[in-house]
Amino acid sequence: MKNIAYYNGKTGPIEEMTVPMNDRACYFGDGVYDATCVVNHVPMAFDDHIDRIYRSAKMIDIDIPMEKAEMKRILQGLVDQVEGDCHMLYWQVTRGVGMRNHPYKGAQSGPSLWAFVKPQVMRDVFGAYKCVTVEDTRFLHCNIKTINLLPAVMANQKAEAAGCDEAIFHRGERVTECSHSNVHIITNGTLKTAPADNLILPGITRAHILKICEKVGIPVVEAPFTIEEMMRADEVFFSSSSALTCRIKEIDGKPVGMKDEKTFAMIRDAYQAELEAECGKRK
Amino acid sequence: MKNIAYYNGKTGPIEEMTVPMNDRACYFGDGVYDATCVVNHVPMAFDDHIDRIYRSAKMIDIDIPMEKAEMKRILQGLVDQVEGDCHMLYWQVTRGVGMRNHPYKGAQSGPSLWAFVKPQVMRDVFGAYKCVTVEDTRFLHCNIKTINLLPAVMANQKAEAAGCDEAIFHRGERVTECSHSNVHIITNGTLKTAPADNLILPGITRAHILKICEKVGIPVVEAPFTIEEMMRADEVFFSSSSALTCRIKEIDGKPVGMKDEKTFAMIRDAYQAELEAECGKRK
Repeated sequence: MKNIAYYNGKTGPIEEMTVPMNDRACYFGDGVYDATCVVNHVPMAFDDHIDRIYRSAKMIDIDIPMEKAEMKRILQGLVDQVEGDCHMLYWQVTRGVGMRNHPYKGAQSGPSLWAFVKPQVMRDVFGAYKCVTVEDTRFLHCNIKTINLLPAVMANQKAEAAGCDEAIFHRGERVTECSHSNVHIITNGTLKTAPADNLILPGITRAHILKICEKVGIPVVEAPFTIEEMMRADEVFFSSSSALTCRIKEIDGKPVGMKDEKTFAMIRDAYQAELEAECGKRK
Repeated sequence: MKNIAYYNGKTGPIEEMTVPMNDRACYFGDGVYDATCVVNHVPMAFDDHIDRIYRSAKMIDIDIPMEKAEMKRILQGLVDQVEGDCHMLYWQVTRGVGMRNHPYKGAQSGPSLWAFVKPQVMRDVFGAYKCVTVEDTRFLHCNIKTINLLPAVMANQKAEAAGCDEAIFHRGERVTECSHSNVHIITNGTLKTAPADNLILPGITRAHILKICEKVGIPVVEAPFTIEEMMRADEVFFSSSSALTCRIKEIDGKPVGMKDEKTFAMIRDAYQAELEAECGKRK
């Protein structure tokens, strides 16, 4: 089939799938999610993503009763049913179904598992992208991958309206991350990326990049950086499980980076090699 | 019937109502809501709530195509079908239905209207309540009544776990509001309440209280107050469209307020009189 959706054991085309109105996703955004790219029916860094959604759930006091292996089995079962060789696998765990009420103990079913798999055109990692900056007014739990995503939606729409590809959040002068990716800079051959505190999501691609840097000998500084530092860096790029590594050439209409392709390419190529080693060559 | 739910023209019992998985409520919390108490099938301050949801929607760039009168007509139609004389009317407008994608222009149906009416036991406005304090880590758009409510859920659960009735948020020393109500203090006969900036929801009951104070001659200061000020105030109370006016006797296990019943009672009684004038006497 072309795509598939899943909700608590029920499956069907995404466009036709329905869920109970009383799922707490609907009233509160009371849930966490994860997503990864799927190449040749192999979800990239699957275990890392599975681990993260259990961690995210725990941080909002959702105890997923299902074993990790069972969740993987269900999701892989969905992936296997969809035609094509490049997909997005998205899944979320919400607190469950019950009459709308803020407190949640004992008042609803167990957690709900939602998922879908759909065809995905991957970004060209040899391209160069444009971004806008947006003041980061999100809550102080950005380390948890929740579905309270309205500020990310608004920021991303702002990027799209400006003909750009991503929105870069900043709290005052400090750059945090993008609307659905992490952002990094390279200056004098050193990679700088915001620390994994409560202001950013600890991206799985980000973690892979840090390991790659260690392996290939690129020094890494995990510390806050400013808009000004970013604007005069040699390279600026964003990363995520679906965007992989995307070089940035322009921010708020001003040219940035594009001055140290060698260092950026070491990271990009090593990450592409990892993807290929794990999922096989893209056709 | 006992209760009723509505989604884009479809109605049924709340427990059985389903919605499309691709409604942006489900992935992003991409919507706004409102709610009010209904006595004798008359929604309290209905026009104020209708006005507010249109305002909330506009603030997140949702243009509700339906006229206000039409929304009122639909909601009143639901209210009229439910047995009993005391209800909660809840409704939300979400950005619409479409494949999950952050940017929203042109990518989905028009806005969705959701609603439900269910029996509600009102709080005893002659009682006295217990609260906990919780650090306010929410986003900086608390003036918009969105369904990105996870921090409010977590705070309210904390209150419930402590055997309390509400959670009072504070940003550092500054008290903002509660998890689903506004909080006010009375000191030396003067009411103090946080200003209607982006850190609190401009409650409709709060607005009514301010008008009542003007009418009955209670001085009002709309200014930030601290936890310390609250702990030593003569009276502390919270207000909302469902809780009405609730006097607080204890915060974090320490006794507070309960020293100026006369001033508090002027507000409480005037608000009860307004409710009765609008909706009739409760049976």
